[in-house]
Amino acid sequence: MPGPAALAAAAAEGKHGERRYAKLEEDEKPLSLVLFSGTDDKLTAAAVLAVGAAAMGRPVNLLLQYYALEAFRAGNVCADHALAWEATREDSHVIRAHPGQHWSELLRQAKEVGEVNIQACALSMDMFHLKQADLDPLVDGVEGVAAFVASASDGQVVFI
Amino acid sequence: MPGPAALAAAAAEGKHGERRYAKLEEDEKPLSLVLFSGTDDKLTAAAVLAVGAAAMGRPVNLLLQYYALEAFRAGNVCADHALAWEATREDSHVIRAHPGQHWSELLRQAKEVGEVNIQACALSMDMFHLKQADLDPLVDGVEGVAAFVASASDGQVVFI
Amino acid sequence: MPGPAALAAAAAEGKHGERRYAKLEEDEKPLSLVLFSGTDDKLTAAAVLAVGAAAMGRPVNLLLQYYALEAFRAGNVCADHALAWEATREDSHVIRAHPGQHWSELLRQAKEVGEVNIQACALSMDMFHLKQADLDPLVDGVEGVAAFVASASDGQVVFI
Repeated sequence: MPGPAALAAAAAEGKHGERRYAKLEEDEKPLSLVLFSGTDDKLTAAAVLAVGAAAMGRPVNLLLQYYALEAFRAGNVCADHALAWEATREDSHVIRAHPGQHWSELLRQAKEVGEVNIQACALSMDMFHLKQADLDPLVDGVEGVAAFVASASDGQVVFI
Repeated sequence: MPGPAALAAAAAEGKHGERRYAKLEEDEKPLSLVLFSGTDDKLTAAAVLAVGAAAMGRPVNLLLQYYALEAFRAGNVCADHALAWEATREDSHVIRAHPGQHWSELLRQAKEVGEVNIQACALSMDMFHLKQADLDPLVDGVEGVAAFVASASDGQVVFI
Repeated sequence: MPGPAALAAAAAEGKHGERRYAKLEEDEKPLSLVLFSGTDDKLTAAAVLAVGAAAMGRPVNLLLQYYALEAFRAGNVCADHALAWEATREDSHVIRAHPGQHWSELLRQAKEVGEVNIQACALSMDMFHLKQADLDPLVDGVEGVAAFVASASDGQVVFI
């Protein structure tokens, strides 16, 4: 799996590069991801989006809800979180055999290269009777959905 | 579960409040949600996003497709719509025991505090042989996907 | 299932038409879809969004990941890709009986009426040991996530 530098290089090589960078100044709008699912494939997809956007200089906000929040419990991050139900046995074998970095490692890298803020959803915290001390140190805090919507400003919001 | 006023207050208390409200005038762009899944956890996540955005003065558009549309059948709204397949037995117990408001009640509140428009997807209506009279009064009308895309304007579009 | 012209007409008939077209010049921002799931219902929902946006003159970018990428393998497009796990037996019967066009046909139409670019995610290609020759001709190329994020510019990003 490519590191942030490789991802940024890949972006620069995009075949529609000129058009793509025409609005560079607008690229600083945040990318906001609501993580709902807690399966390793969706968490990886989310982490790759986060590291890609962070490498391009965009602020990234993550809000952890429901099963994604559970995946960020302290001591639980590197456990097997299953894959989407539609993964066949062959898919599982191939996905697990891929030598890419773990999604938690990708998020750590994203935090190193950019402005990445990971918040636990206050409502889900209450629902699952969790306190921030129960969560992995990757999580920066706890916030409500309205604060998340406000922080999203007029950047993109993606639900995963 | 907090009411709209509490959500708005939570937003105002966001720790990045200054940055977050820097572009307040842009917050009036609509938030558009495509509801595809019909499980209670995803419908709750969607309703909380809707009420949060509505409390902040943003127009909210919802488009109901497939299993989400079925969840809005008249008389079916408060039925048990199951949870995501990845919910464990323990998760289900905890989620069902949480004293929060039902997603339909949250949507009703969102309509009271803001401009919230709930449309059934014309294609799904046709697929499931439904007429608007078959749906809960929360649903304001029936529209095509192109009309929904047009109404989304340049606000965010979230698929849940 | 309506064709692109019917979809565009439906958009024009939207009951909030005036408001909706107030920002017409901004409608040319791209709509970017990350396709993760490979079930026929989600692929159809994505294709309908794509054709609707293309008919309105908006560029559409699709990025194929994981199970969605597998659905675009050459010779596999028209296979039965199952439905979401929450589809009941009755749902499956109704959805399969609907005389709408296949999602691959909708995407072909979207390409005819507009600027629709379908890219395979480089990371998923590597994970599943695929080369572009293994994919359906609908797929225009292979790109990394960062290139996709760059091409999304400040348009909407939807994860399906």
